[in-house]
Amino acid sequence: MSKFWSPAIESLVPYTPGEQPRIANLTKLNTNENPYPPAPGAAEAIKSFATDRLRLYPDPNASRLKEALASEFETDSSKIFVGNGSDEVLALAFMAFFRQPKPLLMPETSYSFYDVYANLYAIDHQKIPLTHDFRIELDDYPSENGGIIFANPNAPTGVALPLSAIKTLLERNQDSVVLVDEAYVDFGGESAASLVDEFPNLLVVQTFSKSRSLAGMRIGYAIGSVELIDGLERVKNSFNSYPLDMLAIEAGCASLADKNYFSQTCQRIMQTREQSREALQALGFEVLPSATNFLFAKHGELSGSELMTYLREHNILVRHFSKPLIADYLRITVGTDAEMALLIETLRQHPAISSKPAP
Amino acid sequence: MSKFWSPAIESLVPYTPGEQPRIANLTKLNTNENPYPPAPGAAEAIKSFATDRLRLYPDPNASRLKEALASEFETDSSKIFVGNGSDEVLALAFMAFFRQPKPLLMPETSYSFYDVYANLYAIDHQKIPLTHDFRIELDDYPSENGGIIFANPNAPTGVALPLSAIKTLLERNQDSVVLVDEAYVDFGGESAASLVDEFPNLLVVQTFSKSRSLAGMRIGYAIGSVELIDGLERVKNSFNSYPLDMLAIEAGCASLADKNYFSQTCQRIMQTREQSREALQALGFEVLPSATNFLFAKHGELSGSELMTYLREHNILVRHFSKPLIADYLRITVGTDAEMALLIETLRQHPAISSKPAP
Repeated sequence: MSKFWSPAIESLVPYTPGEQPRIANLTKLNTNENPYPPAPGAAEAIKSFATDRLRLYPDPNASRLKEALASEFETDSSKIFVGNGSDEVLALAFMAFFRQPKPLLMPETSYSFYDVYANLYAIDHQKIPLTHDFRIELDDYPSENGGIIFANPNAPTGVALPLSAIKTLLERNQDSVVLVDEAYVDFGGESAASLVDEFPNLLVVQTFSKSRSLAGMRIGYAIGSVELIDGLERVKNSFNSYPLDMLAIEAGCASLADKNYFSQTCQRIMQTREQSREALQALGFEVLPSATNFLFAKHGELSGSELMTYLREHNILVRHFSKPLIADYLRITVGTDAEMALLIETLRQHPAISSKPAP
Repeated sequence: MSKFWSPAIESLVPYTPGEQPRIANLTKLNTNENPYPPAPGAAEAIKSFATDRLRLYPDPNASRLKEALASEFETDSSKIFVGNGSDEVLALAFMAFFRQPKPLLMPETSYSFYDVYANLYAIDHQKIPLTHDFRIELDDYPSENGGIIFANPNAPTGVALPLSAIKTLLERNQDSVVLVDEAYVDFGGESAASLVDEFPNLLVVQTFSKSRSLAGMRIGYAIGSVELIDGLERVKNSFNSYPLDMLAIEAGCASLADKNYFSQTCQRIMQTREQSREALQALGFEVLPSATNFLFAKHGELSGSELMTYLREHNILVRHFSKPLIADYLRITVGTDAEMALLIETLRQHPAISSKPAP
């Protein structure tokens, strides 16, 4: 602790992002990045950008990007918010909506940044356990709350909720904000964006980082009622007027314009995921059903940290969380077919795996 | 007010950035943008960037940019913090350092975002008047405080403090953070960065937006003791892991590499500024001495808002603040020689100005 820090800073436990190694020749399956490049149009928008214009401030409202997103979701741009990655959108949403007298509800196992935001703003929060098979059970969320947040599909489990379950929650929970974090929804989940007009307390957050291969560009967004978007804008405009730079706005618009490329790469990843899931099961792994671009898997004979270390020694990075409920599991990003074949082959060569016949 | 907002959100009065019009053919002297393009190397770094890499997350620590800045300031990268524009750096610094039992001190007339941040975090603050000639008088800042923030050179006045005055303040104020916002320092101010090793409570904030012509790219940074930088990192990593995208990191590094271009464009703007100042004085304007890329000027016969409206009718944008102490003034960004000649000529044609002989 420094005497110069605000007193609340001492107790912060910041989020730890997955490793971004500088070493080449690593197979990087640890941060849920897309194995395919961004849409050709997005690359072209950057290459052809008139860089002299960078001397000017960007549009603080990023109106072109909001309009492109509004068109994508068949809604009005007044129902769209954009920010510097969905992490920033989430951070601003916590400030705008969840500093309430009643506790915020979140799944016990979910994106670990939720905890960090709650601590940053000193928000009282309550964690609701997943079911034994790692599903979010929204019936377990009490009506007395100052907000509800969950990821759908959930991370790091990959398990998706049906839209009907979210609608049932929204029907009985109309007095506080329900934030659905859909970072992974394009890989097989059902988006709640279609419910935004019906439920003014619903905020849906998505990102260009995964399905649009633009993690390096930092673009996140939210879809919600004008009332919620206005709340986000008030906080954003009290924090940083211009979170999206000019190139992020351009690349984002160009990415949205190429619908074919988007659906083809998502399809390809889902195919690779299902093949990889079967191959892992054949090696004796238990693998949760995934509606994301990652697989959450455990092996009966080996701990998660043993497997992570073994793969790391063979230049393959995967993510492991040292948390009691999920310590046995690995979160494995779905890469290309070749990357997944390498992963499977490397696992097969592990003495404790190769010695067992496929079940 | 929405019932879904956190109660504190209702009272926010967000910052209003200067207009970013979509109309072409405007002479834009309202947001202190640099009239010259960014360094050729920065443009080249963007054009030649391997866009396939955008599928990956950026380095959350932006280490290359920190190292380039450390080299520029002849210090260690552990004393450098980077963020999404200096506005974000300021917003995080308010959270990290200024939420204290004692009030934060700031000049009565300064960058109006300071007020907004203080309100966002419910920070008790006290405003210290400028002198009658619009100088910051640091002797007027009481010792009992929870922090001190000011811009040097100050905005929107353009007036600079000598480094000796800041050193005197630091010598008597060692128990709270002193934040010197040096957004405009490269146009003739004296940076306090050289004092960072001596005073662990000093944080110097700078930006690539003005002197480096990269407003469109959103790059700000802070220089301070390891203790202060660690405090900023804790807050940043509890808010958004990756505020700088890959292209911002690349463009920033390339800009720092071209020292000649940087000093040449700064020199050119300072020359144009001094010529423009004389020309405005010849038209009967009172112009404060400026160490920035803008001039703060008033005309005895015409109000600030009258002049702003007149110029707007002639397709020239300047900035006017409707605040009692400075309502008579215009803040005029220093553009190219041609832009400033157009401004001067347009003002000369105003009936109330042309009728008066030059003093």
